[in-house]
Amino acid sequence: MSDYGRLFPRWRDAAGPEWTRYTRHAFVEGMRDGSLPRAAFLHYLVQDYIFLIHFSRAWALAVTKAETVEEMRLCAATVNALINEEIALHVKTCAEAGLSEEALEAADEAAENLAYTRYVLDAGHSGDMLDLLAALAPCVLGYGEIGARLGAEATSDAYRDWIDTYAGADYQGVCTDVGALIDTVAARTLGDDPQASPRWPALCRRFATATRLEVGFWDMGLRPA
Amino acid sequence: MSDYGRLFPRWRDAAGPEWTRYTRHAFVEGMRDGSLPRAAFLHYLVQDYIFLIHFSRAWALAVTKAETVEEMRLCAATVNALINEEIALHVKTCAEAGLSEEALEAADEAAENLAYTRYVLDAGHSGDMLDLLAALAPCVLGYGEIGARLGAEATSDAYRDWIDTYAGADYQGVCTDVGALIDTVAARTLGDDPQASPRWPALCRRFATATRLEVGFWDMGLRPA
Amino acid sequence: MSDYGRLFPRWRDAAGPEWTRYTRHAFVEGMRDGSLPRAAFLHYLVQDYIFLIHFSRAWALAVTKAETVEEMRLCAATVNALINEEIALHVKTCAEAGLSEEALEAADEAAENLAYTRYVLDAGHSGDMLDLLAALAPCVLGYGEIGARLGAEATSDAYRDWIDTYAGADYQGVCTDVGALIDTVAARTLGDDPQASPRWPALCRRFATATRLEVGFWDMGLRPA
Amino acid sequence: MSDYGRLFPRWRDAAGPEWTRYTRHAFVEGMRDGSLPRAAFLHYLVQDYIFLIHFSRAWALAVTKAETVEEMRLCAATVNALINEEIALHVKTCAEAGLSEEALEAADEAAENLAYTRYVLDAGHSGDMLDLLAALAPCVLGYGEIGARLGAEATSDAYRDWIDTYAGADYQGVCTDVGALIDTVAARTLGDDPQASPRWPALCRRFATATRLEVGFWDMGLRPA
Repeated sequence: MSDYGRLFPRWRDAAGPEWTRYTRHAFVEGMRDGSLPRAAFLHYLVQDYIFLIHFSRAWALAVTKAETVEEMRLCAATVNALINEEIALHVKTCAEAGLSEEALEAADEAAENLAYTRYVLDAGHSGDMLDLLAALAPCVLGYGEIGARLGAEATSDAYRDWIDTYAGADYQGVCTDVGALIDTVAARTLGDDPQASPRWPALCRRFATATRLEVGFWDMGLRPA
Repeated sequence: MSDYGRLFPRWRDAAGPEWTRYTRHAFVEGMRDGSLPRAAFLHYLVQDYIFLIHFSRAWALAVTKAETVEEMRLCAATVNALINEEIALHVKTCAEAGLSEEALEAADEAAENLAYTRYVLDAGHSGDMLDLLAALAPCVLGYGEIGARLGAEATSDAYRDWIDTYAGADYQGVCTDVGALIDTVAARTLGDDPQASPRWPALCRRFATATRLEVGFWDMGLRPA
Repeated sequence: MSDYGRLFPRWRDAAGPEWTRYTRHAFVEGMRDGSLPRAAFLHYLVQDYIFLIHFSRAWALAVTKAETVEEMRLCAATVNALINEEIALHVKTCAEAGLSEEALEAADEAAENLAYTRYVLDAGHSGDMLDLLAALAPCVLGYGEIGARLGAEATSDAYRDWIDTYAGADYQGVCTDVGALIDTVAARTLGDDPQASPRWPALCRRFATATRLEVGFWDMGLRPA
Repeated sequence: MSDYGRLFPRWRDAAGPEWTRYTRHAFVEGMRDGSLPRAAFLHYLVQDYIFLIHFSRAWALAVTKAETVEEMRLCAATVNALINEEIALHVKTCAEAGLSEEALEAADEAAENLAYTRYVLDAGHSGDMLDLLAALAPCVLGYGEIGARLGAEATSDAYRDWIDTYAGADYQGVCTDVGALIDTVAARTLGDDPQASPRWPALCRRFATATRLEVGFWDMGLRPA
């Protein structure tokens, strides 16, 4: 289990069993052993396309809240990677599965999707850069952790493409960069001992809420569309 | 069925059967005939307390997006009424039912609550004043419509206090004012024939999405906590 | 010199001579001894009317960024006081001086006005509640300090109405409340020793920048319109 | 004089003589004939470095307000170009002139800079995508127009690098893309006849205010630092 820096493992620990419910969700285990129904995966893909659009908006919001050019640079690179690579990859994967870009754009956004992405955006609008990063972290770094584990443990090739994307060096590099960004922002915001800050419990709650909403997202994936 | 101005009935019509699912939901009918379990009502009250906090934030966002002092005045009065009256009333009603303010503050926010309130806030952040009003309208004016109908049709006194609040002259006056605000903002944004504007379908979608999220909120109320 | 709480005097000290340039500006001294030309005062009043509109928007933004109902309540009350009382007072004062509400609304916003108010709004959008309060503080509390001093030291009645407004118990009470709000938010954000926080220098810079923009606002007042 | 699409020339016409004051400012003419003092140019460069940071934030805000993936893509590419190319170019140009990156970061932001950039950001926060674009347009497209003219008319090589940047195919291509983006967003927001929209005067005022703030920016450049 990779740590992607110093702060992430502390937030993960504070989230407790919710983190396990997210990263070892039946949907994830179904990708690991190939038992996940294809219809569930496609349902997930369509919603994840919409998710990525709003998640990109949240990273763009981070550009507006960064305090140094270096932080802006990293957030802008993430926006670019999400919009110009990850969304494009989704369109391609969906096309191979018979889902046109028009179908993606016409899909209704599930309530679980709305809850998660708008919660992250609101974390940014109501708080500062660190509040926003605490809400962004479970998705970025949790997918890194899931990808790395499934890369090692998968017993089926049914979802190999998905696993390779998140287990791959590119995505793992993004996770390392984001983990470092979180540590930098936490240091300039909270100082050397973040857990001693009065903000610590609220930051852990943000991370835990976003983790809970990730569980809801997988639940939604398993539900018939 | 009151119309609260010119634009609201058009948005309501465009929402189609979703509007009926919201305003004639089993939760609503249970308040009408007294069959709604008390536990469901209390569950709803706790979540509605959290809802009102974020709904007040959305009206405060409207103050920042208003274009005239008159619009600011009306939005600020609404924020004040929500925070200093409606939230206070909730605290009092909950206290009578044995729920302390501490219990309210300690409650976890349901995903349906997150989805709805953060969607409304994001409508304001991503769009203009009219986008925000289209997302705020189903709650404000729908409760007015439900209150007025139940005020006339209720066959039980079990939820009389709730019904009287929303059927009462004060709340109906708020609905008239908000309906007029929507018409004013629509006129200065879209002109005399709003349905001819290229923005019309997107505005109807915003109203319909918020209506769908209201249905989810009642569903949540009926679910055991 | 009143302190309005614990944090404000530290920010004021950190702002150094800029604070004196603001609170003992020639414009202020001209109100004290009555030497300020009436035309300059009217020019200031017109711009201050526009200022109050955007300053109200910034306090409304604070409602959206508050973390407790109590904080929301205080910010909402401030929005209400600004929009429904202070702006109304301005309209009345201007009317007595022969400036109609239409003239106020038609006035071009001076660059110094844009710089100040939009800087405050951006402090809120880019940072958290405390960043926003650090940018709001110089205006609210500086006017309290100026009003209190001129209430005691004025040697002319020429600007007695203005002085009485800010020296009066109502406005001084607002300053006490806002000072207490700053202390509360600082405590929950930075802990017991705010000056030990890594955010301290940036917060002092925000306060100092807003102070510098207040100096620019008085300069603008003295310039022929 | 290039038109960069259909809407820009109408906004430019509506801005009237203010547009000429901006694009034929003494600072611009001094770059054309080489008479601009080097110290003024360096003063401008330092402030323009800070300007670009906040201008990038405004384009990132546009990503969060876009309505289609295509619009997001173009805005994200602009953010990337600004942060990873234009800011880097500034750092290099300043270094050649003996200004270190530390000196750039330590510089105080001029009030004219604050006024302009925060006004643009607030246009985005208070309005919709089109409001934001109306405030962004004078800088992006005005520099394109100035660059193209000086590329043809310059009588000195003193500011050749600057002129080549904005006269060059890369930057002119950005202008064409941004002009097309404005036309697309205007069409989906206002319809076929934007000048018939009740929003037209307010959009023209936004463009004119941003143009006025550009004039202030050149004025600031000519003032001793």
